[in-house]
Amino acid sequence: KTHENSNDQFSNPKNKKVMVIGGDGYCGWATALYLSKKGYDVAVVDNLVRRLFDHQLGLESLTPIASIQNRIKRWKLLTGKTISLYVGDICDFEFLAESFKSFEPDAVVHFGEQRSAPYSMIDRSRAVFTQHNNVIGTLNVLFAIKEFREECHLVKLGTMGEYGTPNIDIEEGYITITHNGRTDTLPYPKQAGSFYHLSKVHDSHNIAFTCRAWGLRATDLNQGVVYGLRTDETEMHEELCNRFDYDGVFGTALNRFCVQAAVGHPLTVYGKGGQTRGYLDIRDTVQCVELAIANPANPGEFRVFNQFTEQFSVNELASLVTKAGEKLGLEVKAVSVPNPRVEAEEHYYNAKHTKLIELGLVPHLLSDSLLDSLLNFTIKYKDRVDTAQIMPSVSWKKIGAKPKTVSV
Amino acid sequence: KTHENSNDQFSNPKNKKVMVIGGDGYCGWATALYLSKKGYDVAVVDNLVRRLFDHQLGLESLTPIASIQNRIKRWKLLTGKTISLYVGDICDFEFLAESFKSFEPDAVVHFGEQRSAPYSMIDRSRAVFTQHNNVIGTLNVLFAIKEFREECHLVKLGTMGEYGTPNIDIEEGYITITHNGRTDTLPYPKQAGSFYHLSKVHDSHNIAFTCRAWGLRATDLNQGVVYGLRTDETEMHEELCNRFDYDGVFGTALNRFCVQAAVGHPLTVYGKGGQTRGYLDIRDTVQCVELAIANPANPGEFRVFNQFTEQFSVNELASLVTKAGEKLGLEVKAVSVPNPRVEAEEHYYNAKHTKLIELGLVPHLLSDSLLDSLLNFTIKYKDRVDTAQIMPSVSWKKIGAKPKTVSV
Ligand SMILES: NC(=O)c1ccc[n+]([C@@H]2O[C@H](COP(=O)([O-])OP(=O)(O)OC[C@H]3O[C@@H](n4cnc5c(N)ncnc54)[C@H](O)[C@@H]3O)[C@@H](O)[C@H]2O)c1
Ligand SMILES: NC(=O)c1ccc[n+]([C@@H]2O[C@H](COP(=O)([O-])OP(=O)(O)OC[C@H]3O[C@@H](n4cnc5c(N)ncnc54)[C@H](O)[C@@H]3O)[C@@H](O)[C@H]2O)c1
Repeated sequence: KTHENSNDQFSNPKNKKVMVIGGDGYCGWATALYLSKKGYDVAVVDNLVRRLFDHQLGLESLTPIASIQNRIKRWKLLTGKTISLYVGDICDFEFLAESFKSFEPDAVVHFGEQRSAPYSMIDRSRAVFTQHNNVIGTLNVLFAIKEFREECHLVKLGTMGEYGTPNIDIEEGYITITHNGRTDTLPYPKQAGSFYHLSKVHDSHNIAFTCRAWGLRATDLNQGVVYGLRTDETEMHEELCNRFDYDGVFGTALNRFCVQAAVGHPLTVYGKGGQTRGYLDIRDTVQCVELAIANPANPGEFRVFNQFTEQFSVNELASLVTKAGEKLGLEVKAVSVPNPRVEAEEHYYNAKHTKLIELGLVPHLLSDSLLDSLLNFTIKYKDRVDTAQIMPSVSWKKIGAKPKTVSV
Repeated sequence: KTHENSNDQFSNPKNKKVMVIGGDGYCGWATALYLSKKGYDVAVVDNLVRRLFDHQLGLESLTPIASIQNRIKRWKLLTGKTISLYVGDICDFEFLAESFKSFEPDAVVHFGEQRSAPYSMIDRSRAVFTQHNNVIGTLNVLFAIKEFREECHLVKLGTMGEYGTPNIDIEEGYITITHNGRTDTLPYPKQAGSFYHLSKVHDSHNIAFTCRAWGLRATDLNQGVVYGLRTDETEMHEELCNRFDYDGVFGTALNRFCVQAAVGHPLTVYGKGGQTRGYLDIRDTVQCVELAIANPANPGEFRVFNQFTEQFSVNELASLVTKAGEKLGLEVKAVSVPNPRVEAEEHYYNAKHTKLIELGLVPHLLSDSLLDSLLNFTIKYKDRVDTAQIMPSVSWKKIGAKPKTVSV
């Protein structure tokens, strides 16, 4: 396989300890297994709050997922490899400090945030929770590194959504500006489109400051929308299976369309469907994170990579899924639904993404065969779909200060 | 007086209700009185936490200050004007909501934040407090406006420190960038230098989003360093006297130098002293805020003004104070102390500040006579100075995760 071991010349995982915060989540679980398989000594830190959100909102992953304890036990049985587990909230500094002192990480991959834009737009209380959870959690991680592991490399998950949709090319984190005859390279301007995306902008500014002021080393991975389910590791056993969100709150574009196609629900295109974003296969998420760890930032360096492999508009994705569905005999049609978000529906979009390629990323591009297998997968689980969860239920404009309760 | 009534053609304060959040503080108190005098119906919202910080750190204003209750009573006795008072924390949404429903503001001036960079760099707990207090407090104000007073104009105090010290001219909030043949006007890149300054950057991004998504109207006043003590209103009675901070945590550059000169302490220049910033007289702070209120932003508009009148380097300020001191027979000398901050000590600095001038601001520039009266003022109170509080005690690099306690 070309994708495996492509970066062995850089990485020397032997005895390298990696703490994966948010390691029970969609990206985090796949990454924890991938790194463990590669020979890193891995610890998962997670308070499992994402499972709580699902309970509270009455949502469920398309795929059945085992408990984190059983996932880790199964991995040990299959591979002999140990993944340490620290269950707790990184907003609780005492807990985080103990995890640091006990595990002594050389790198921290920080996935552990509330990561849904719609969730952050449900009501005031969830907006505040999202910014508090993400900003304070990340501040605590920065203080833990400074206090206990100054050499530790922080690999932080950001989002391409931090940039918004400017009318100029999007660079990787910085832009060189010539203005009134003088030139400087400055942080790329941010125009985030939800309280969730804003929390990532806040994190980026906070992390950049600690690199400057304290000499920390950090890589901000501005990730695009992730699609796909299987990685080599998670498909080894059903107890290792990853989560797959298709609902209107946590589901993301392409994954949602595949489930919609599988159950015969029209593909929900928001508004005009011209919204263009960067996308990547979950097998590339895990690859990118490992490349960042294997090639750490220098002390004092705040490095930003745009982590995606291809750009698509929502309409383009809808027609790809329509075609793939037809091949499988599914009747798929796309409908435009009123856009619950406030965003440009037709806009310029050209984002650079060369730095991870330069480090050795070999992308899994979205191909017919991938879409076929993803669709087949969603068909396999289609009886688990609750079609009531498919339509978007959270409106950017209607968010209120009153707590929104959910009743059945 | 040229400074009074210069903008009467714009303002129609009759029945305009202005909520001053942080109205017990240095800028807020002077502003509340100024607006009340001008005929606005004013309410002060403050949880008085700033007085608590002083108690906890063993600090005291150079000037004796009356309680907020006595301040407001005295104002009523002198002028017949009522200022409403809501004592509570804006991070407590129930409290804030009740204040909004009871007072029904047409404009909110938001000064109510933890505003000291050194305070935010004391320890992890104060860093977290600062970002939580400022970011969540401001989120609550945004939700209160959306929920209860959608037409209300938010006038939010930011800081020039949000921009850092880029090597190009600093514009007012936005910069037009031409890049690879395309052009867009984007938020000016931010490079804040403390957890406090970062909290203001976060606020700015959050507010900008709510203007875009909800159609709120807001003015972000990126204020420079404020100096001076007296405004026409605060000097009417000793019970109306404003606070004046000179200590290493809450004191700001020029005010501190005046107190140092008065007590014969060497002027504490941090490092090389080439740090250049924007400054303004507190009489201009109150004028600028009124100009913003009298000329509100449009619905959906996020307007940014750079609120200062002159640029000085620390060395320039030191030599101005030295000269003014000599005229009064004080022997003043400046010393370089190791810089407790991480910042450029020699750098390019050219920040635009024309928008408030265009609205009618007539600046009180720093003149010999102002410095004379400020120095005389500090001499009057010099017996109240605790010289142990003068030196900087908070280091940007030495901040730790452990709570820093203060003992006498
Ligand atoms: N999924 C995507 O398409 C995508 C795209 C761009 C960026 N990202 C980013 O990647 C990261 C992971 O995303 P995901 O899709 O795997 O999300 P997820 O919700 O599946 O996983 C996040 C995990 O973090 C944990 N967590 C949250 N707050 C925590 C706290 N305070 N303490 C401890 N653990 C906490 C949750 O319990 C959960 O297991 C997020 O930061 C997200 O913003 C994801
Ligand atoms: N003083 C300066 O030189 C300067 C310069 C630039 C910007 N600013 C900004 O102007 C504003 C006012 O500054 P200042 O010098 O008057 O500060 P200050 O500390 O004197 O006043 C701030 C007031 O806000 C109140 N407050 C803080 N948190 C609150 C909360 N959660 N709920 C209710 N009240 C709360 C405090 O009790 C205090 O009375 C701040 O936002 C500051 O960042 C000040």
